[in-house]
Amino acid sequence: MYALGTHLLVELKDCNPDILKNLEKVRSALVTAAKKAKATVIDLSFREFQPFGISGIVVIAESHITIHTWPEYGYAAVDIFTCGDLIKTEVAASYIIKQLESKNPSIVEMKRGILSHKNEKLPHKVTLRPTAFNEEYQMMSR
Amino acid sequence: MYALGTHLLVELKDCNPDILKNLEKVRSALVTAAKKAKATVIDLSFREFQPFGISGIVVIAESHITIHTWPEYGYAAVDIFTCGDLIKTEVAASYIIKQLESKNPSIVEMKRGILSHKNEKLPHKVTLRPTAFNEEYQMMSR
Repeated sequence: MYALGTHLLVELKDCNPDILKNLEKVRSALVTAAKKAKATVIDLSFREFQPFGISGIVVIAESHITIHTWPEYGYAAVDIFTCGDLIKTEVAASYIIKQLESKNPSIVEMKRGILSHKNEKLPHKVTLRPTAFNEEYQMMSR
Repeated sequence: MYALGTHLLVELKDCNPDILKNLEKVRSALVTAAKKAKATVIDLSFREFQPFGISGIVVIAESHITIHTWPEYGYAAVDIFTCGDLIKTEVAASYIIKQLESKNPSIVEMKRGILSHKNEKLPHKVTLRPTAFNEEYQMMSR
């Protein structure tokens, strides 16, 4: 049974709160995780909130990795969404768990886009289109 | 039972393929959905792939909305992740379903960060920190 996407929902409890509130460490954990999983990083957006907490998104050619941290509860929610079967999602998840020092991690793996129950393989997209549309659309809060 | 986050996993089958391959329409659908849900849009990243297909991320102050489309299968995977109870996730989901003309949508709602089984409310973060760390970290593919 083939699906277009694989989605890991990673619940990280009992993390090190000091790491969860450190933008550089959180960013480094996600970007390095993406690279270790053999994903192609194409964009990043990380922000810090008041009183504390970080939201981060790593756009990869194969989909995305996101994180939202609540240092006050030692908790972080991580999502690793990939298409194709070349990306080692479990490597990315393990690395993030280790870097955030979670003592109580759990992972749910979901298949996204199950379009066939037959034993046929579905292709995936990995190449960016080299046209004018291949621009990044950025805007700030309005 | 309170959770820190609410996560809608939206599976959109039998969409209009022409819309799924239209970057402007997909982008507009997600950004407008975020606004209709009363979320605060703070960043966007949308890209088109070869031979077709779009990946898009809307960073909102309250977490994120993402989409990955496969026009060749009429399928799109949408995730709506929010914290707090002020954001109308179901409004965002309904709007995206309508805009992509999905004739076969399904939604799974997951609670993220269930830290207590008691009837106590957990706070959420909505204010960006006005410091040097509150910069956007952007980089292109390497």
